Amino acid sequence: MLAHAGREVHFLLNSDYEFVRKNGLRVDSVRGDFHLPGDRMNLHRTAQSLPPCDVTIVGLKTTRNHLLAELLPYPAAEGGIVLCLQNGLHSESDSAVVVGNDRVLGGCCFLCSNKVGPGHIKHIDYGRIVMGEFTPAANAASGVTDRVTRIVEDMRASNIDANATGDLWAARWRKLMWNIPFNGLSVVLNASTRELIDMPATEDLSRTMMQEVYDAAAACGRTLPLDSINATLDHTRDMVPYDSSMRLDFLAGRVMELDAIFAAPIAAASSAGATMPTVEAIHQQLRFLDRKATDG
Amino acid sequence: MLAHAGREVHFLLNSDYEFVRKNGLRVDSVRGDFHLPGDRMNLHRTAQSLPPCDVTIVGLKTTRNHLLAELLPYPAAEGGIVLCLQNGLHSESDSAVVVGNDRVLGGCCFLCSNKVGPGHIKHIDYGRIVMGEFTPAANAASGVTDRVTRIVEDMRASNIDANATGDLWAARWRKLMWNIPFNGLSVVLNASTRELIDMPATEDLSRTMMQEVYDAAAACGRTLPLDSINATLDHTRDMVPYDSSMRLDFLAGRVMELDAIFAAPIAAASSAGATMPTVEAIHQQLRFLDRKATDG
Repeated sequence: MLAHAGREVHFLLNSDYEFVRKNGLRVDSVRGDFHLPGDRMNLHRTAQSLPPCDVTIVGLKTTRNHLLAELLPYPAAEGGIVLCLQNGLHSESDSAVVVGNDRVLGGCCFLCSNKVGPGHIKHIDYGRIVMGEFTPAANAASGVTDRVTRIVEDMRASNIDANATGDLWAARWRKLMWNIPFNGLSVVLNASTRELIDMPATEDLSRTMMQEVYDAAAACGRTLPLDSINATLDHTRDMVPYDSSMRLDFLAGRVMELDAIFAAPIAAASSAGATMPTVEAIHQQLRFLDRKATDG
Repeated sequence: MLAHAGREVHFLLNSDYEFVRKNGLRVDSVRGDFHLPGDRMNLHRTAQSLPPCDVTIVGLKTTRNHLLAELLPYPAAEGGIVLCLQNGLHSESDSAVVVGNDRVLGGCCFLCSNKVGPGHIKHIDYGRIVMGEFTPAANAASGVTDRVTRIVEDMRASNIDANATGDLWAARWRKLMWNIPFNGLSVVLNASTRELIDMPATEDLSRTMMQEVYDAAAACGRTLPLDSINATLDHTRDMVPYDSSMRLDFLAGRVMELDAIFAAPIAAASSAGATMPTVEAIHQQLRFLDRKATDG
């Protein structure tokens, strides 16, 4: 959307590079479809050719974060900011060790979007992005800084529903309240979010898991809005039937983001003296399935 | 085995009646294979033709217990005893309401045996049966009674590894320590007991569920042996790879014994002020799968 609005955007592509060069990038979006012609995009096949950038957006799966040490030094060469739009808790730390804590922002994407084919993105519901400063300590909050405000304003000018937060940890916990039950259960029970929310047994189970996330966040000093559990269930009920990213990863034989979405929050809760028994049980089931898929 | 040893046994058969009449009953057992010829068995197609019996063994799935009101009055017509060799907690109560509390015994089968075809039973591992008096109150124990001792002796004379208990509730809880994790997880994760016990994540999860069963039993006044969790894990590790009965039911599209194996223990624990969060989560997952299979 930034490129569509005329901003200078450089794309680092891997398996889709040739396809996009020839056919461009197609985005089917509830906020408006558009197409970027390949010959008018700044396409890169390797990080080495990326210019120093003001802002580097990291959209990797967290399971590929080991690549950051190799990739980030090029676009971040002249002191630019790194914005991690990734799942999980504390996933910014992998970027922070490469460029330094004070150059990293994180963001949560509250939207339903998948890559459905080479150079083809389908964005089917919602669109809110919440971003803020990365603070390494789990009980620290930065407040809204000027640079976050400027990036949010640039994005909003490109029709992105971007929002600043002064407390990234709170935003992360808020997002996990959806990710933990619906990513986890959709894989274990081989079900869509629609099936999970429509069946009383799994609606109850999701609520239990959300309560554990709520309590863990509170133990970590983040009291989420009182109505956040009901609001999350309502949003899911109103959502276009959607396959969670973890389910798509699992069905495609890709590694799941278990460390970012499960292990990290469980560890954070545990450090703060909170337990998440139901979330831990689902995590153990997922590890079993992950290991079985890998061994098979 | 009672019939094989020459005792008078009457068999009430449903779908296998014609097959067994023609081909007899074949038992492949780790304790010795044998075959009962159909023309030397007392076969019944309906309960009405059963004679009054000294002991009526109920081997129905608990999901069919609604049939007991119709079936039991015939063999129990002259005051005989009803021995329920069924899964779950308190499943004897369905027989007790038909014939009276004081005529009911219950027993737990710690063995690996399945029906693998018409008139064909495969008994692949273990063989212990523990039986005792039914006591309606969860905190009551009867002690070993003479009639239990006599039945046990008759069975042992037929080469059955039968054992008397003076505390049926304790035996039920002890059996649930296996049934709850391994029946439940084998369905949810579509796995054999071997896969579950070999993978650290699911071994941990099974241990957590067993601890919840242990604590629930303790809250209900039944302190199980201290080493029962490790012993159950060891038995499972040594077990011939085995499909749990619940998994076989699920794969065959039959209703699962969720009320007897999950809902009843959860309710008993709750009445005694204990919670079983992990067991409840797995129960909710199973209810989802059960409902989805039924709806589909």
